Amino acid sequence: MSLKKNLIRTALGKEPADLIIKNGNLVNVHSGEIYKTDIAVRDGLIASIGPVPEGAFGQKTQIIDAEGRYLAPGFIDAHIHIESSMLTYTAFAKAVVVRGTTAVVSDLMEVTIVSGVPGLKALLKEAESAPVKLFYPIPSFMGEEEAAYQTTGSLLLPNLIEELILLPQAIGLAEVLYPPILAEDENSARNLALAEKYGKTAEGHAPALLGEALNAYAGTGIRSDHESTNKEEALAKLRAGLRILIREGSASSDLQDVIRILTEENVDTRYISFISDDIDALHIQDFGHQDHKVRLAVQTGVSPVKAIQMVTINPAESLKLDGTRGSILPGKVADIVILSSLKDCRVEKVIIDGQLIVDEKDGQAVLQKSYPPPLYEDVLLNTVRLVASVRGADLLIEAPEKSLAKVHVIGISGANLLADALEADLPVVDDVIRADIPGDVLHIACVERYGKNGNIGKSFVRGVGLKAGAIALSVGHDHHNITVVGTNGADMAAAVNRVAALNGGIVYVRDNTVVSEIALPVAGLLSLKNGDQVADDLRRLIAILKENGCLLPSPNVTLSFVTLIFIPFLAITDKGLFDVLKFRIIDPVISAV
Amino acid sequence: MSLKKNLIRTALGKEPADLIIKNGNLVNVHSGEIYKTDIAVRDGLIASIGPVPEGAFGQKTQIIDAEGRYLAPGFIDAHIHIESSMLTYTAFAKAVVVRGTTAVVSDLMEVTIVSGVPGLKALLKEAESAPVKLFYPIPSFMGEEEAAYQTTGSLLLPNLIEELILLPQAIGLAEVLYPPILAEDENSARNLALAEKYGKTAEGHAPALLGEALNAYAGTGIRSDHESTNKEEALAKLRAGLRILIREGSASSDLQDVIRILTEENVDTRYISFISDDIDALHIQDFGHQDHKVRLAVQTGVSPVKAIQMVTINPAESLKLDGTRGSILPGKVADIVILSSLKDCRVEKVIIDGQLIVDEKDGQAVLQKSYPPPLYEDVLLNTVRLVASVRGADLLIEAPEKSLAKVHVIGISGANLLADALEADLPVVDDVIRADIPGDVLHIACVERYGKNGNIGKSFVRGVGLKAGAIALSVGHDHHNITVVGTNGADMAAAVNRVAALNGGIVYVRDNTVVSEIALPVAGLLSLKNGDQVADDLRRLIAILKENGCLLPSPNVTLSFVTLIFIPFLAITDKGLFDVLKFRIIDPVISAV
Repeated sequence: MSLKKNLIRTALGKEPADLIIKNGNLVNVHSGEIYKTDIAVRDGLIASIGPVPEGAFGQKTQIIDAEGRYLAPGFIDAHIHIESSMLTYTAFAKAVVVRGTTAVVSDLMEVTIVSGVPGLKALLKEAESAPVKLFYPIPSFMGEEEAAYQTTGSLLLPNLIEELILLPQAIGLAEVLYPPILAEDENSARNLALAEKYGKTAEGHAPALLGEALNAYAGTGIRSDHESTNKEEALAKLRAGLRILIREGSASSDLQDVIRILTEENVDTRYISFISDDIDALHIQDFGHQDHKVRLAVQTGVSPVKAIQMVTINPAESLKLDGTRGSILPGKVADIVILSSLKDCRVEKVIIDGQLIVDEKDGQAVLQKSYPPPLYEDVLLNTVRLVASVRGADLLIEAPEKSLAKVHVIGISGANLLADALEADLPVVDDVIRADIPGDVLHIACVERYGKNGNIGKSFVRGVGLKAGAIALSVGHDHHNITVVGTNGADMAAAVNRVAALNGGIVYVRDNTVVSEIALPVAGLLSLKNGDQVADDLRRLIAILKENGCLLPSPNVTLSFVTLIFIPFLAITDKGLFDVLKFRIIDPVISAV
Repeated sequence: MSLKKNLIRTALGKEPADLIIKNGNLVNVHSGEIYKTDIAVRDGLIASIGPVPEGAFGQKTQIIDAEGRYLAPGFIDAHIHIESSMLTYTAFAKAVVVRGTTAVVSDLMEVTIVSGVPGLKALLKEAESAPVKLFYPIPSFMGEEEAAYQTTGSLLLPNLIEELILLPQAIGLAEVLYPPILAEDENSARNLALAEKYGKTAEGHAPALLGEALNAYAGTGIRSDHESTNKEEALAKLRAGLRILIREGSASSDLQDVIRILTEENVDTRYISFISDDIDALHIQDFGHQDHKVRLAVQTGVSPVKAIQMVTINPAESLKLDGTRGSILPGKVADIVILSSLKDCRVEKVIIDGQLIVDEKDGQAVLQKSYPPPLYEDVLLNTVRLVASVRGADLLIEAPEKSLAKVHVIGISGANLLADALEADLPVVDDVIRADIPGDVLHIACVERYGKNGNIGKSFVRGVGLKAGAIALSVGHDHHNITVVGTNGADMAAAVNRVAALNGGIVYVRDNTVVSEIALPVAGLLSLKNGDQVADDLRRLIAILKENGCLLPSPNVTLSFVTLIFIPFLAITDKGLFDVLKFRIIDPVISAV
């Protein structure tokens, strides 16, 4: 809110506009209407909607004739972990801006875990010159308690929250968990009070929370939740006052079920938005981004205006960013998507800060500007450091003088991220407990990769299905050590050592030979290639893994969550096998005879 | 937003609630639904909605069985000048709380004009112990420029804005005018920047503003406007991004026309609220307050949920108060209205801060608590001071040695607040220009009442219709000097002197005798009686005036606006006849022969 003289002068026709868009069909998300109008832009802001006065047409004024196409506000994703794209922020932004995305909210927690605040600030800096704006919620669960169970590159301790919440990109707290709230945790109280003090939001994270606990959680003023996987859960959370962020991404596809709160229950849509949470380069290539969600919503019968509100004004209000964005209205930032079809949400042009950034060529939305690849420093590029090269024997579990072992087995699948607590009887050969390849019980290990202690956690896993070789990757929530799954120690060691040599990546080794690999040299999480290249590489790797028996449709995603100590029931970290419900490390071997 | 331990404990059933409402039909303004539920309240806040856990039922827990009645959030009026009720804040609050009102926004400008910041703070203090919460937007147009044309008790100069915006009751700037915005005024820029700095709103005031000027005005981030008198104007403002406050009060009834933006244009309702602007005790007695607007809306076909949103969550969001009020949701203030009929918006019980304040008795909503009358100080009680008693001749215009005068005449009516610029030829008798009683051209004068200079402005008026006597009143926007209209000087002087003797009021004098009067001893604006008494007094006064020829249905309202130098085309102040378009004092006499 402020009196901007240039804007007033252009609105009144006293001075020329920078850009005038004529003959558009405005999707006015404030009035909820679509109607024909012109738009004038000055200094990157909307100066006027409606007939543009003669005096605003200047010699240097750029004119775009929309020829009846639809003008929507730039799309906003209110909750996405951009690291899950495996792209740099610049490459991610280039991949989604052609889909109409102009702003995203990402807590950059993965990069921060690896590279600390210097890495975080490097990404925020990079984002300033990328086409899509980045807003930042502060992750609040990277504390000392978890450090007892896993080694990370850095911690985000409570004393940092106030420094970070004052960053210009900061919108508030990310993913406030409910167990500490219900336990009246002092740290949580302090963080909420900080968000309140600075007028920021506190975004929620409350999978399957219902009933009394939901009331207690919502009563603290938590603003949103993105974890509903079905209509009933979303309706309960909406009724409790949360804003519902309906998720549709690579890791979880909730839209088709959750959107029934609109199509069947006919609730007020103003507190409902669409978000991605996790989305990889393949998903972007195959389906798109927020445009995909608008298409899905319209296909289920939601009106186009309401669907577009759910990726524009609704997320902007949820994030308290509606004062500047989320709508095409006088005074707001001129982030505009020109759509050739409303129903198909087909993006033809994208204007950001009043500049034409994307335009159609030969039926394709094409970037009009080149964005040089980011120049990273060592803090992001040199993050995978093994204390020593790994040998096969390091990754396997010994059982001296035994012949049979009963072990815990982490049971995973492609259906969801839960890891079942299974058991198996495995043979002991030459004092080592061996995988049961026909029975799909494979070795799993997690190798500390920050050069701090050389820890190796070991156990067994079912559900991967590999019949030969080993896959290793440096992406593993929330510690990002190197996880490896394999049929034998030699291939596992080769895969881990290759990941380290690449300074991060995903590597499949068979018979001591690297068969397929994706380098992820930025924090061990991100590629330096562009979106389509990473999508192609990933598609190839998945195909090769499938040929070798892999049962997981997205092995990179599933294996990156088997390390997370918050998803029931078992997980693996560099400190060992983790029992989520008991919240402690346990011995993978139950007994041996 | 904060972690409140008691609320969490009651939500989880670990500690008892203060109040439980069972078997209600909740109007959930967040989800846009109505459904059966229970509610638990603790420490004046909603602890839970939905089934209340056993542990929340304590020995001291008050239980209200709603027996299927509707539970709506307390009604909010986002824009009202409470002084127009002619009631003290306490009496006003008592009159409207039984109608379901639990919070109002009032800039208290009239009291501040008379009694300055001490008077303003006395009213804010009074409001703290009244049943209805008062929020305060800072009036921004009581500056030095206007002081050239009228005498007031005090000014609100720019250096006060920052002090006032930090008051706990402050919600932002009130009624930001558009001419200074369009003129890029530095004061306006500074005020908007202050509101932005403190995260407050800037409420608008833009009668009949359309087109290019509307774009320029809306582009500054002005949040709302309450001046639309027809559908087209409201639609244009909504499309420009303003929040529409539909007015229905004693001074202007816009709802029936403006609501056609919903019933005919089907716009999104989330940015639309109902407000009163000016409302007198008669209107409250005859129609009600926000309950009346809900009834009217439902009668035109608006769904009850949407109608209730327009007096609860929508105004709360418009005022940025939705973090604490406007909805019945966990963590929000427990301001609850229990309705026996949704369609008729019939209020049976009102709960404020979790306390039962209003309950039904013999079919009437009755206050359950006594509120002692406020104790005011001299700054509010001793505000009408004439430099000297007024004589008849002081109020009339001389034209020595002339016989006929052509004069300007202020043309008023009960239809709206516009004052036409008329002319008339009047006889001059004994060197004084005389009223034309059969032609309804009467004397009007405005007597300075702050004891500062004894100014008397004089002119003529058409439209009042009085056939005998004179009416004087100490309510006159925005200076509140004593305005008198009459057929002769003697009665006019008697009426003015009686108003002064009462320390403010409305007085009708005929044949030198006070026929009817209403004392308004608080700032010369407010009665010390209760709402029904003032309504009865006013009804009697209006009837007597009508018997004496008065054509104005609400003479108290119409005559209190004939003094306002912002309403075209003519006005009267203590400094003389004011030409609104030329923005200067003019001679009431055009010529005399």
